[in-house]
Amino acid sequence: MEPVTLKQIAEELNISVATVSKALKDYPDVSKKTKALVKELAKTLNYKPNTFAVNLRTRESKTIGLVIPVIVHHFFSNVIKGIVAQAEKKGYLVIILQSNESYELEKKQIDLLLNQRVDGIMISLANGTADFSHLKQVLELGKPLVMFDKIAKIVPCSKVVIDDRKAAYLATQHLIDTGCTRIAHFRGALLPQNSIDRFLGYKKALLDNDLPYDPSLVYICECDDRSFEEGLDNAKKLLNDHDDVDGIFINTDLVAIGAMTELAKQGVAVPNDMAVVGFSNWFMSSVISPSLTTINQPGVEMGKRAFKQLYKEIKAIKKNKPINPKVITLETELIKRESTK
Amino acid sequence: MEPVTLKQIAEELNISVATVSKALKDYPDVSKKTKALVKELAKTLNYKPNTFAVNLRTRESKTIGLVIPVIVHHFFSNVIKGIVAQAEKKGYLVIILQSNESYELEKKQIDLLLNQRVDGIMISLANGTADFSHLKQVLELGKPLVMFDKIAKIVPCSKVVIDDRKAAYLATQHLIDTGCTRIAHFRGALLPQNSIDRFLGYKKALLDNDLPYDPSLVYICECDDRSFEEGLDNAKKLLNDHDDVDGIFINTDLVAIGAMTELAKQGVAVPNDMAVVGFSNWFMSSVISPSLTTINQPGVEMGKRAFKQLYKEIKAIKKNKPINPKVITLETELIKRESTK
Repeated sequence: MEPVTLKQIAEELNISVATVSKALKDYPDVSKKTKALVKELAKTLNYKPNTFAVNLRTRESKTIGLVIPVIVHHFFSNVIKGIVAQAEKKGYLVIILQSNESYELEKKQIDLLLNQRVDGIMISLANGTADFSHLKQVLELGKPLVMFDKIAKIVPCSKVVIDDRKAAYLATQHLIDTGCTRIAHFRGALLPQNSIDRFLGYKKALLDNDLPYDPSLVYICECDDRSFEEGLDNAKKLLNDHDDVDGIFINTDLVAIGAMTELAKQGVAVPNDMAVVGFSNWFMSSVISPSLTTINQPGVEMGKRAFKQLYKEIKAIKKNKPINPKVITLETELIKRESTK
Repeated sequence: MEPVTLKQIAEELNISVATVSKALKDYPDVSKKTKALVKELAKTLNYKPNTFAVNLRTRESKTIGLVIPVIVHHFFSNVIKGIVAQAEKKGYLVIILQSNESYELEKKQIDLLLNQRVDGIMISLANGTADFSHLKQVLELGKPLVMFDKIAKIVPCSKVVIDDRKAAYLATQHLIDTGCTRIAHFRGALLPQNSIDRFLGYKKALLDNDLPYDPSLVYICECDDRSFEEGLDNAKKLLNDHDDVDGIFINTDLVAIGAMTELAKQGVAVPNDMAVVGFSNWFMSSVISPSLTTINQPGVEMGKRAFKQLYKEIKAIKKNKPINPKVITLETELIKRESTK
């Protein structure tokens, strides 16, 4: 059964398409009688408007788009939780698209969202994204864009982030304070800003404490959905390559738990032979034994603040006011558990 | 900057809107010169068509909608992975909406997808969904609908499921075979069919083995995002209410891990004092100690098969062929680990 069009309703009632459209949207310049006839026929025929509740006066769709690299990740799922909760409060539906860390897919998805006339877009960048014109285009079209977590400094939009450098410094300093002198780092992929910043925080903490920075102690995790296995593999490599490492700062908890599984398998005692600090405070970190010291990453809060900023910008655009992009930096803290002394 | 419309381009070039639209879609009956003029102006003005790549001839949008109760769950995220991988192969984008187990939100989201003219819809029902007219409406509109995991028998569409009754029977039988005689069950919410079926499988296994069915041994988990805590709480209640229970069949691994955390805390040895079988085979089940015996739930496979069936039905509709709804039942198996003797 083909979807019913405005034209069919207009022909049926012998009135114009514009009148049908206005009648359905309760415009004051259409008579009550006509409105009633149109609405009744629309209901009988199961008519659905072509764009979801786009209000001709306000030009709003009350939907926003959210593009994230992976959904299957506790941090992103917390962010989604925060966004969806806030969006619901304001009567917005959230269209979620997963870019799978692919720049090509991310581009297509931004295009889709623009064509679907969402009121605003929120995004955490794919690991593969090194060009940002598809994002600048969103702003050129006058559409609010808020980035969070994996951001691009060069795109002039609002961002919600944590101070990754400071957090990584804190984590590494804790290892140093609890006795470690030869500290490895399992870092994230090479392109994302937060991965770079965590690496730089780690490095700075070493140098500030007069410890040498040794690049052979840095291992990379692509950190897609093989994170747990990458933790296992990198721990294996580390133990193979070095016998004097006494601490590891790991980019994300899932990788850290993989690493700790391998350490346990090889009889390396945590924290006495090897201390471990993770990042993100996944709830499983408090469940495993030994429990994992980590940096708390406020996912739900990030989602909430990102949506609130987007909403502000949507309202500003409606009133033809300028958008002043902000960078909102959320606090992080070290959660001390059993994996450090 | 207001989005550019076809009308503006038409006015600028002094041609009809229909000609502009046909030029942009490379219709053969528009001259090369006109096409070039239109495309160049559209590019300069950054024109974006109003519905994403809806091909006037094929009436396809090459997008599908996916409605799931929660994203923050390893099973659903595996299903998403399976769906998105298959969809990408066929050039489809997947719009994901999270219903949060709410019937009201699920209804709104189905509406949104219909209005966005997706080519097909896939859904796992919210726990709160007891009325199905919003789904029957999808079929009445001639749109393919495939349900998976949490399905409604009464809606005449294709479904991809596992045999929950058989799987639960298998799990309970294993507890009986390994020596348990007083077996509790942490079940899921009351409405979903798979929760009911797992309970019935548990019950039948007891009765078939001449063990009494005792309702006081059945505890409910709403199993939303408090699953881990519900496992803790129900284990606490169980130990408080009964001192002779020697085995538990638990509806899902995350709840089981919560339960095992409480058992460990109270000094109850697993499996010797209390054996535990979970459901879904979350990867963490093999990581914790003792590792969790569970039923493998083929999430990625379910996603793949669901998309493949949807794609078949999309093609059938295009060729005006009838859709013959199928129920596809995937195999499950018991994964024996350390939490049972």
